[in-house]
Amino acid sequence: MIRRSRVCIPVLVQFRNRFDMLPIGVHSDAEALLCPIRTVLSKVTGKWQIIIVLALAEGPLRFSALKRTIGDVPQRVLTENLRNLQRDGYLTRTVSPGPPVAVSYELTALGQELVTLLKPIVFWAKDNIETVKAARRDYECPAG
Amino acid sequence: MIRRSRVCIPVLVQFRNRFDMLPIGVHSDAEALLCPIRTVLSKVTGKWQIIIVLALAEGPLRFSALKRTIGDVPQRVLTENLRNLQRDGYLTRTVSPGPPVAVSYELTALGQELVTLLKPIVFWAKDNIETVKAARRDYECPAG
Repeated sequence: MIRRSRVCIPVLVQFRNRFDMLPIGVHSDAEALLCPIRTVLSKVTGKWQIIIVLALAEGPLRFSALKRTIGDVPQRVLTENLRNLQRDGYLTRTVSPGPPVAVSYELTALGQELVTLLKPIVFWAKDNIETVKAARRDYECPAG
Repeated sequence: MIRRSRVCIPVLVQFRNRFDMLPIGVHSDAEALLCPIRTVLSKVTGKWQIIIVLALAEGPLRFSALKRTIGDVPQRVLTENLRNLQRDGYLTRTVSPGPPVAVSYELTALGQELVTLLKPIVFWAKDNIETVKAARRDYECPAG
């Protein structure tokens, strides 16, 4: 009996209208570090990260104002997400010596680019919220 | 001494070039259910969810082919994410009775729309991966 050997090649997904090939599959930790989804996007497309950069879209905010704007974010979660967004270069943190000391956050040019790209998907989600909720209902209780 | 009362009003972020107002802040669980980021996007912008819908962008795939395409996804994680994406209406699951039984996954029209919106942000991440890595290095070891 002949067994076909499975040749392991990097898997690329090609998108029409674009010359680039986008790597989707990775087969080692080293490859994962080169993946834009695993290395870049995974740190910035979480719920709180999207909400934070959108909340800063119109200009800098102090920590307290940012927390009040978002409403339902725990202080510790906000602090942690701000630190990670600053680490990745999407926002700057400025401490005014005061008194009183004031800490404010502002999007960088990279952060503004990110917001520009996120907006269409957020508005799309807004337009499709009922479609998704209906899909959830159908999945839980299929008709007939 | 007069204390100003803090009036709690829903916080809306207005974007230029768009008439809609986007709600960012929520102050109750009921409001959170109406938020497109908290209710819709938070279930579909995770690392594996983005990777899965992109892997299906070119057409339907069987479970085994999808797992092989992605490469580094644990079977249990893939199964769970596929179930959630199906629940939210982004893909369909088809069982061919066989033998052998074959289970395949295919994007719905909603899933295709999502892919179309995700592509620009993935290519942007690809173009900016070195910028983000440099920001991380600067944050960990600030110069001078």
